[in-house]
Amino acid sequence: MKFNLRARLTAEFVGSAFLVAAVVGSGIMGERLSGGNVAIALLANTIATGAALVALILTFGPISGAHLNPAVTLADALERGITWPDALAYIIVQCAGGIAGGIVAHLMFGLRWYSVSTHSRHGWSLVLSEFVATFGLLSVIWGCSRLRSGAVPFAVASYITSAYWFTASTSFANPAVTIARTFSDTFAGIRPSDAPLFIVAQLAGALAATFLFRWLVPNLAAHADHVLVAHPQ
Amino acid sequence: MKFNLRARLTAEFVGSAFLVAAVVGSGIMGERLSGGNVAIALLANTIATGAALVALILTFGPISGAHLNPAVTLADALERGITWPDALAYIIVQCAGGIAGGIVAHLMFGLRWYSVSTHSRHGWSLVLSEFVATFGLLSVIWGCSRLRSGAVPFAVASYITSAYWFTASTSFANPAVTIARTFSDTFAGIRPSDAPLFIVAQLAGALAATFLFRWLVPNLAAHADHVLVAHPQ
Amino acid sequence: MKFNLRARLTAEFVGSAFLVAAVVGSGIMGERLSGGNVAIALLANTIATGAALVALILTFGPISGAHLNPAVTLADALERGITWPDALAYIIVQCAGGIAGGIVAHLMFGLRWYSVSTHSRHGWSLVLSEFVATFGLLSVIWGCSRLRSGAVPFAVASYITSAYWFTASTSFANPAVTIARTFSDTFAGIRPSDAPLFIVAQLAGALAATFLFRWLVPNLAAHADHVLVAHPQ
Amino acid sequence: MKFNLRARLTAEFVGSAFLVAAVVGSGIMGERLSGGNVAIALLANTIATGAALVALILTFGPISGAHLNPAVTLADALERGITWPDALAYIIVQCAGGIAGGIVAHLMFGLRWYSVSTHSRHGWSLVLSEFVATFGLLSVIWGCSRLRSGAVPFAVASYITSAYWFTASTSFANPAVTIARTFSDTFAGIRPSDAPLFIVAQLAGALAATFLFRWLVPNLAAHADHVLVAHPQ
Repeated sequence: MKFNLRARLTAEFVGSAFLVAAVVGSGIMGERLSGGNVAIALLANTIATGAALVALILTFGPISGAHLNPAVTLADALERGITWPDALAYIIVQCAGGIAGGIVAHLMFGLRWYSVSTHSRHGWSLVLSEFVATFGLLSVIWGCSRLRSGAVPFAVASYITSAYWFTASTSFANPAVTIARTFSDTFAGIRPSDAPLFIVAQLAGALAATFLFRWLVPNLAAHADHVLVAHPQ
Repeated sequence: MKFNLRARLTAEFVGSAFLVAAVVGSGIMGERLSGGNVAIALLANTIATGAALVALILTFGPISGAHLNPAVTLADALERGITWPDALAYIIVQCAGGIAGGIVAHLMFGLRWYSVSTHSRHGWSLVLSEFVATFGLLSVIWGCSRLRSGAVPFAVASYITSAYWFTASTSFANPAVTIARTFSDTFAGIRPSDAPLFIVAQLAGALAATFLFRWLVPNLAAHADHVLVAHPQ
Repeated sequence: MKFNLRARLTAEFVGSAFLVAAVVGSGIMGERLSGGNVAIALLANTIATGAALVALILTFGPISGAHLNPAVTLADALERGITWPDALAYIIVQCAGGIAGGIVAHLMFGLRWYSVSTHSRHGWSLVLSEFVATFGLLSVIWGCSRLRSGAVPFAVASYITSAYWFTASTSFANPAVTIARTFSDTFAGIRPSDAPLFIVAQLAGALAATFLFRWLVPNLAAHADHVLVAHPQ
Repeated sequence: MKFNLRARLTAEFVGSAFLVAAVVGSGIMGERLSGGNVAIALLANTIATGAALVALILTFGPISGAHLNPAVTLADALERGITWPDALAYIIVQCAGGIAGGIVAHLMFGLRWYSVSTHSRHGWSLVLSEFVATFGLLSVIWGCSRLRSGAVPFAVASYITSAYWFTASTSFANPAVTIARTFSDTFAGIRPSDAPLFIVAQLAGALAATFLFRWLVPNLAAHADHVLVAHPQ
């Protein structure tokens, strides 16, 4: 089934909003309740994020592809799975949706609607972490969507669940989510000055994985427009 | 396969009873064992609730649709997936089953069969939380049941697992469960005076999501009677 | 595919051994590492048991039906899914396998090969818990195996994951596992004098669910010999 | 679809690298954040490893079979699922990939690129643990891949999640991962002098399970070259 651009953008907006609300909201709840044990707060944050990804990709995947991530949209455009004008529109609503989701999370927890994060996340080890995290995410997406598309929601959610713990940056792996998290001075926040390098590393990781899988699974290149699960085009 | 109304109501009763028993019982167990760390108690409560939803929707879905939730039944009636008289009967047995499940949980843990909750949950941020929680729940149900019905049990369970942590109210998102939880002065309880606004917000969230998806996936409106997974009609 | 009785009994033996090894072993590990926080130990025990059930039912289900539980075998025999002589053999190897698994768990953790449990678990609330736990387990099995057999491994594992927390007895729900756990004076143990009432309650719960589903899904009675997932007969 | 050896080896290299990065990285993160509660650190380590396995087997399974484990490759070669020269190449890149993944994990967490582990893991109970762990792993793989290949990613991940807790050794069950973990003096490390017996026990367990399933499911022996899920040959 083919959905028109307005429906697809709505799906990307609502999905990105719920994704950031899940990340930011569960971070607030986890920090409030865990009595100072950061591992327990991060465990709650991890479970909430992974479970949200299962639900959101199953829900919005058939409508918009459930990219919910500019790095995914760019990679898809490179592989001709989405046109460049549509990709640009996707990215804009992903960022807007992410920011909106952060605001909703703040209001649900009785905080001011936004706050600028002071959570420092800098250093080359974190930049490397974001490169690895997004390289892995796009590897999972390309590997599954080309060969086992029904598994994408579970594969992506499982990957992010794992990457929260095996990268030092807790695997943002998403430029729209990174931007939205600069507006939240809570557990999940990131200082605005640290965001640009995170985003550069994410895009570099996404590109590297895309080129690797273009070589690994070449005979599927002709089907690039069917690449993402339930892609509407 | 079509089941008669008596079988379907039995499924809704037993399913709702197990759902509330899982919520209330695991709340009691979590609080007893966690030594005052609320995050660990809520983590146990979350895992028990999410896992119960997978099992219950897989078990009762093919018989009654496994609504187990008046907000879901109302939304389904609006979309002509269930007749209004059947919907009314569903809602009554969901509430009765939920209360029965709470009683069973109390007896399993050696408590008096019921107690009126004194757990205060008031304030606009919690009301907003319930609106968002139920808006998300119905979005997941409509998104998956219209386009990928086999995934509903996993999508709903994952969503609630996440929403326990990203909403400030721990995502009741269910009027029958809300009523049943007023009769339990334990971890999962809610003061009776706080319940009405919770229920209003839940119904408003369910309506908003139903209207959104009626617009998002319009060409499926004609198939509304096949909307919910394994719906018996 | 049909497997001969020797292969099926081997599958039940190995599967029951791994199930008890998972329950007892993870209980020992959880208690050793959790620094006295019982909720964390039980969380580890829960996750290990639920995950083991997914793996074991997927592995041995196609061979023997992966009952791994005398209550399930009895219910299946009542519904003519297995002959009574075969059922008796199943039950004997389930008990033997369970005891063997407990011994292996003890040896892996450097403990004496067996010890008689002194873990008191008595009182009517625990007996009610076991009735409810096994009623729910058989409801899930009958509901899924009659209508969605591929989902049985996930439904059963999810159910037990939940029931560990929502019943006061942590949901033994299995006579063979109950017997095996009397031989382990560790976290998961049960005093031998408490076992008989647990087993009576388990069998009563299994019977009640079997009769309920015989009525709920009557038109499938004729297919009773195909009831359990991938049943070999 | 058939992939050439270079693509398959690349998949094994990248997959093994991510597997070890997940094990080592999440061990470092878990230990840093858990405030000395080893159970919480191991819970994080467990969830990250299990989730990584779901994602990696779904991603690389269709390309190389996603062995990611010399014990699996050897067992597959014994059953004629892979030629011996290819098996040797697989094993070499699995070890190299595993070591590379450990290095990446160290760099992401700002540690020196490698360190020799001083984490003592010796004694017969641990050797027995590794035999049992790998016997179970290969049982799960043979049971599922012969009869329900689509379930392999979930069955293997669930099994390892469980075995982290029910074996005293936290279930390495993989010679390549064992070697890689000797180069990391962190939570997940193992002293080089303890590694050889671990590996011997792993191979013995893998062989035992392979022979058991060769007997249990004999009529599938003729299809041995289709044994592993999505095997490329």
